[in-house]
Amino acid sequence: MAQDFTVQLAAGRTSSVIFLDGIKALSHRLSSYGSRAVWVFDDNSARLFTSLPEHTVVLPSGEEHKTWASVEKILTAALDAHLSRDSWFIGFGGGVVCDLTALASSLYMRGSRLILVPTTLLCMVDATLGGKSAIDFKGGKNLVGTFWPARDVLITPACLRTLPDAEYMSGMGEVLKHAFLSADHRLYDLLMEKKDAILARDRDVLLELLDLSLHVKASYLERDPEETKGIRQALNLGHTFAHALESIENFTVKHGMAVAWGLSRAMECGVAAGVTPSWIQEKADGLLRFYGYDIDRRIERGRWLDWQAATAKDKKNFSGTINFVLLEDWGRPVLRPLDSALVRSAVIRKA
Amino acid sequence: MAQDFTVQLAAGRTSSVIFLDGIKALSHRLSSYGSRAVWVFDDNSARLFTSLPEHTVVLPSGEEHKTWASVEKILTAALDAHLSRDSWFIGFGGGVVCDLTALASSLYMRGSRLILVPTTLLCMVDATLGGKSAIDFKGGKNLVGTFWPARDVLITPACLRTLPDAEYMSGMGEVLKHAFLSADHRLYDLLMEKKDAILARDRDVLLELLDLSLHVKASYLERDPEETKGIRQALNLGHTFAHALESIENFTVKHGMAVAWGLSRAMECGVAAGVTPSWIQEKADGLLRFYGYDIDRRIERGRWLDWQAATAKDKKNFSGTINFVLLEDWGRPVLRPLDSALVRSAVIRKA
Repeated sequence: MAQDFTVQLAAGRTSSVIFLDGIKALSHRLSSYGSRAVWVFDDNSARLFTSLPEHTVVLPSGEEHKTWASVEKILTAALDAHLSRDSWFIGFGGGVVCDLTALASSLYMRGSRLILVPTTLLCMVDATLGGKSAIDFKGGKNLVGTFWPARDVLITPACLRTLPDAEYMSGMGEVLKHAFLSADHRLYDLLMEKKDAILARDRDVLLELLDLSLHVKASYLERDPEETKGIRQALNLGHTFAHALESIENFTVKHGMAVAWGLSRAMECGVAAGVTPSWIQEKADGLLRFYGYDIDRRIERGRWLDWQAATAKDKKNFSGTINFVLLEDWGRPVLRPLDSALVRSAVIRKA
Repeated sequence: MAQDFTVQLAAGRTSSVIFLDGIKALSHRLSSYGSRAVWVFDDNSARLFTSLPEHTVVLPSGEEHKTWASVEKILTAALDAHLSRDSWFIGFGGGVVCDLTALASSLYMRGSRLILVPTTLLCMVDATLGGKSAIDFKGGKNLVGTFWPARDVLITPACLRTLPDAEYMSGMGEVLKHAFLSADHRLYDLLMEKKDAILARDRDVLLELLDLSLHVKASYLERDPEETKGIRQALNLGHTFAHALESIENFTVKHGMAVAWGLSRAMECGVAAGVTPSWIQEKADGLLRFYGYDIDRRIERGRWLDWQAATAKDKKNFSGTINFVLLEDWGRPVLRPLDSALVRSAVIRKA
């Protein structure tokens, strides 16, 4: 069984990552938080239980519900339950549920206690650890939010058993990113050696995978919890490309698939800019192909203006210069602006 | 001129209190923040300037506009101006404008830079220092919000020249509260010795009054910035009574007037509970009467149930037991639950 661990975040706050061996252990743990709680599910995660607790909000699934109206539903349920600042907000589901519950928890009486139970791989390795909460606002993804770490993040690989394959592979995109960002090779080696068990969602291998992946993320968070020092930004490796692709494809490409493609583009640009050694690109693309990601996709030439517009709309780029995350060695990210022609040649289909 | 000073708040954040000698000095200071800013006024504060900056939101005045819809207006203006995390949100007005601007600033890209320019006495001494942002929600006053301190709080007594007398005296209620909470007697002595100049809003005396009052507040904030240690709660002296009175009178009583009345009730209860020496009650009531506050008001007997319902609705009381702030000595607050019969006899008109 993977060891539980605690991450130091901003303002003296901590998140504990707790690994649980099955739905029964999860239920038992959840009952320990007592009845002064509001529970948030989505249509999918609500199905994991035969009966739901008192004071429950079930939100409709989908990114289009990541709005203030959903936050209001959670706040209203908390108010109706007469919760106080020391009560619990428990978010149970994928990224949308976790981000919404975290935002509501951070705002209720200026901050109540938060527990997150991610039920998708993407959410387990990406969304729940690090304290980011958000809603989308006027077309800006995650434009409005807070930093509000969960006291406990409960990781239960058993939740992943019924996850559709496409969702699972989307989460794996972020796991591969963490392998690129880790100077120690344990996550890379596990990915190379245990692919079949990973894709079969073998419980023990999954626990090891989650444990290693979350430790990589934690190492960046602890050094820059509020993303002010240029360290945490490394977790955006591949994401400038991924966000632009998602945007021009109207979010029909799954996030982790776009990230996998973006990782490959970041390697290509890094080599072209003289930052990334070419053996790193080969090794990275090799891993991405090994897991079946489509890294050969390119954007049609006529869409370069759309690409630029999508990049300008990305909130991370509002201050003007875009800093791309590149690798100067395996596990050693740097932030660099890139020449527009260089980016163009990495993302646009050749004539 | 009063000395500028800096208050240490949660998460390594600080607020600088900057005293400015007139509208011209204020304008000059404001221009130093540059053009990457969104400005928030209300109908009243907008009139202090002949022309308003680009990217300005003018909100309608009044507590009924302390809602998410107003926060959305500010966020939309920031987005339209393509502001980034290192841009400025500048709130210019009374408590409603300052609380709304602070909330929007704390949420925009998970936190942008905030400047507050309070234009009422209540807002100068109470709302702007301490980092509380809020909106009202489903009848719950300030139920939803964040802790997000302003980088700079600009204090310009010249803004108070045109403030209506009732507004000014409402602010003075909080100033008197700070005198009760200060073990050193300088604020009390100033209030006793310079009443005429204070009521005439003499510039030099006002600066001294604001300086002393803000330092008292700062001393409580620095020891308990997020209100988790039972120290900052002392700033609620009189407020459990004040909130209930405001609520059952449908907010027709001004906040500071209700606070002044609540201070007197807290003294009466403190004496009855054997916590407050009777000479403290006499001194406190003497100061309150000296400034003309109606501390003899009582609630009609038939409204005791309304009073209890209003108290239960106060978000600070959701956890069950209500801890009242009492004085065991001048400037020495303690938190104590009070017997309901004792509270009743202090607030209800005798037969």
